[in-house]
Amino acid sequence: MPIASRACLLFGIAAFLCADARAATEDPIKKVLDAQVIAWNKKDLETFMSGYWKSEQLTFFSGGTLTRGWQQTLLRYQQRYQGEGKEMGTLSFEQIAIESLGPKSAVARGIWHLQLAEGKEVKGLFTLILRKLPEGWRIIHDHTSI
Amino acid sequence: MPIASRACLLFGIAAFLCADARAATEDPIKKVLDAQVIAWNKKDLETFMSGYWKSEQLTFFSGGTLTRGWQQTLLRYQQRYQGEGKEMGTLSFEQIAIESLGPKSAVARGIWHLQLAEGKEVKGLFTLILRKLPEGWRIIHDHTSI
Repeated sequence: MPIASRACLLFGIAAFLCADARAATEDPIKKVLDAQVIAWNKKDLETFMSGYWKSEQLTFFSGGTLTRGWQQTLLRYQQRYQGEGKEMGTLSFEQIAIESLGPKSAVARGIWHLQLAEGKEVKGLFTLILRKLPEGWRIIHDHTSI
Repeated sequence: MPIASRACLLFGIAAFLCADARAATEDPIKKVLDAQVIAWNKKDLETFMSGYWKSEQLTFFSGGTLTRGWQQTLLRYQQRYQGEGKEMGTLSFEQIAIESLGPKSAVARGIWHLQLAEGKEVKGLFTLILRKLPEGWRIIHDHTSI
């Protein structure tokens, strides 16, 4: 086989392996985020929260407020979106970029968008740090802002 | 050597190696952040910006605004803190937590604090994603909020 062909073959294999490694991180993380969106739009906060690391060490930064722990984060969502006169709206994520940071870690960045009643909407940016845990990919840190 | 002593020795070596690995990530990242604080407080934005990845792919999320690229991020800082009637104040970082995400990546989280003139102050949260590049540890993504 001529050297150029061999180089192309090697390049092809390398590109395939890279694409494969990327998909191995991106696809399961996309699934976690997709499942969160579906759960949110069913007003099922417990299932939405299953995308987060069920640990006291989970951190959630929203604007200037630091929340620590899975239970506290669930409570914050309940108070903010399911309290008296509150609404959850319809959630969507836009321009999601997932980037591997190691064999078992990644960052997901993008825009969150909530469609509310009477044509109102609210949106902002998010940064999620995820780790591949025995139970699957989970968000270990969420920084959200408007 | 009794088994218990051997186990203790192994545990000691493992703990030493772990502490060493942690320091290998944390110490150089702390130095990057310390250098940023010193540069900021000298009103030297160019040196402050040397903590960031000098790339068009750098991302900077502040509140709801997405800035892409090193040059654009510098411009944003200049407009926001060095424009007419603006002040840089005195920067400090508090409660910094640095966590390794792989051999060449880490996240740094904490509180930023700006002491301004006339006793005013402003503070908020930050999430920094860092990568170990040939030039050293650099921030590749910054999410800051008030």
